[in-house]
Amino acid sequence: MKITMAHGSGGQETAALIEQVFASRFQNPVLAKMEDAAVVPGAHRLALTTDSFVVTPLFFPGGDIGRLSVCGTVNDLLMSGATPKYLTCGFILEEGAELSELERIAASMADTAREAGVSVVAGDTKVVEGKGGVYINTAGVGFLPADRELGADHCREGDVLLLSGTLGDHHAAILSARMGIENEIRSDCAPLCEGVAALFEAGVQVKAMRDVTRGGLATVLNEWAQQSGHGIRLEEEAVPVSKEVEAFCGILGLDPLTMGNEGKFVVAVAKQDEDRALAALKAARYCAHASVIGRVEGPGEAGVWMNTRLGGTRRVPALYGEGLPRIC
Amino acid sequence: MKITMAHGSGGQETAALIEQVFASRFQNPVLAKMEDAAVVPGAHRLALTTDSFVVTPLFFPGGDIGRLSVCGTVNDLLMSGATPKYLTCGFILEEGAELSELERIAASMADTAREAGVSVVAGDTKVVEGKGGVYINTAGVGFLPADRELGADHCREGDVLLLSGTLGDHHAAILSARMGIENEIRSDCAPLCEGVAALFEAGVQVKAMRDVTRGGLATVLNEWAQQSGHGIRLEEEAVPVSKEVEAFCGILGLDPLTMGNEGKFVVAVAKQDEDRALAALKAARYCAHASVIGRVEGPGEAGVWMNTRLGGTRRVPALYGEGLPRIC
Repeated sequence: MKITMAHGSGGQETAALIEQVFASRFQNPVLAKMEDAAVVPGAHRLALTTDSFVVTPLFFPGGDIGRLSVCGTVNDLLMSGATPKYLTCGFILEEGAELSELERIAASMADTAREAGVSVVAGDTKVVEGKGGVYINTAGVGFLPADRELGADHCREGDVLLLSGTLGDHHAAILSARMGIENEIRSDCAPLCEGVAALFEAGVQVKAMRDVTRGGLATVLNEWAQQSGHGIRLEEEAVPVSKEVEAFCGILGLDPLTMGNEGKFVVAVAKQDEDRALAALKAARYCAHASVIGRVEGPGEAGVWMNTRLGGTRRVPALYGEGLPRIC
Repeated sequence: MKITMAHGSGGQETAALIEQVFASRFQNPVLAKMEDAAVVPGAHRLALTTDSFVVTPLFFPGGDIGRLSVCGTVNDLLMSGATPKYLTCGFILEEGAELSELERIAASMADTAREAGVSVVAGDTKVVEGKGGVYINTAGVGFLPADRELGADHCREGDVLLLSGTLGDHHAAILSARMGIENEIRSDCAPLCEGVAALFEAGVQVKAMRDVTRGGLATVLNEWAQQSGHGIRLEEEAVPVSKEVEAFCGILGLDPLTMGNEGKFVVAVAKQDEDRALAALKAARYCAHASVIGRVEGPGEAGVWMNTRLGGTRRVPALYGEGLPRIC
């Protein structure tokens, strides 16, 4: 069955769609009340975030738009140091979208929310003209401990940068799916709860964290350099990239440093915590290939440099221009 | 200037767009940090909601998609009894959208947020192929007092139903704009903070509140009848409709009871508070035409009936079918 404009009317057909596709899968006592706003327990400090997901194709090796829409928002909350608690989700459906695909997407969102320990407590569905596309917005609320303050402005000379795993997998998987290339590359799309929790449980002094999504590591680290007023130096040979992605990038002329990821984060920690942080990450789910990739240098010129495999040094600029649109 | 796919890349062009259009207008200390999640003070009980806005045209008499996107979410929070505090906002832009229109929309959102006393603390922008359309999702967080519990299941026989003003204005304004009909009808699109606050300040025992949006009053009251297990009886002559909207409906065969509104709410109060509630509402902004429109009847058959102007009685069903798509 295909979605029609009537599914977006706000009347009985909208209610039937919501019941069949969403309510049955996201069940929890708050959502079951079906009020226009969900009432939930709060906390003294909150983290709030929002992200819209417009990826094509909707299903790809390693994930789908539903899993992505939960991971993206959960990871943004985690990066602030918060424990993710609640999600809201807004669907914009183009007329002609397949009901069976919507059901798969909703099931995937529900599975991923369960894995990440969050509840979907409010939702909305609209229908627009178009060609069967599906867009999902998720907003998230997390609880923050009283004394936790993270941010690139906490970075100091000598701090160590760790990356939680290989770069480029999501980007290469989406591109392969679009170009009809068959390979072993799968999106890394995952909720990073375990890796982040492992750092705090190990007592690591975390300065800043960021998930490395659209724009890639190069864009994140240039923002950090600007915000902190410090230089950042990477070691090319320490940046993990899988053999498959490296080969893929070689053929297409892509740079893993500007490619998007959906289950990777970079973290700055105090120098004395380097070994503890690396061990904690490596033992956590989705972080087995964690690596120390560089350091924060002295204040002054706020940019990113890389010591290359060949023994040279090059400046690493932020992504400019199109990258790969609709990757997330 | 028109929006291109490059504005959605996540790189420098996305950052420039966000700075030019959004950051300058939504300025507040939280948003200025430009982290992936905003950190804000919390509360013991929260109300959460989300809504996406896909209205065409983007600008219409009485409002625009920006004002609508703030009012819709603020009003959903208010209806739970919460004080709206924070908004997140996600833009999905179709390639070809006009930058100058985006700026007007952002300015309108900022003005409306100021009026409603909420801060926009997190945002996201994506670009998709298409014909220049603009879709906006807002999610909202409100704070709820410890002892406030509203819901249709609190309604009892004899409770009084009040409507905050005339029906059908938003729906008729959108339809007029689409059909190129010139008239005096303007959307009622407004944040309902004052009307709601007036009820609580007057000490009214509020049982349930709902803003009367897509699907209209008929759909809201049928949901209330179902949730409460009580009948609901309306007095047709007490339901306020402006002369202009009444004439418009007469020509096009529309029923104000199923038409969408964006600045009206229905409230159920205890019988003894009827006069106090009406006086409080009438003195509040956007509620001058408030009226007592009906009563909750005994438990039993859960439906909505109306005593008509001509002295008869008819059943009032929920909206079925298309209504007017993309009205909000």
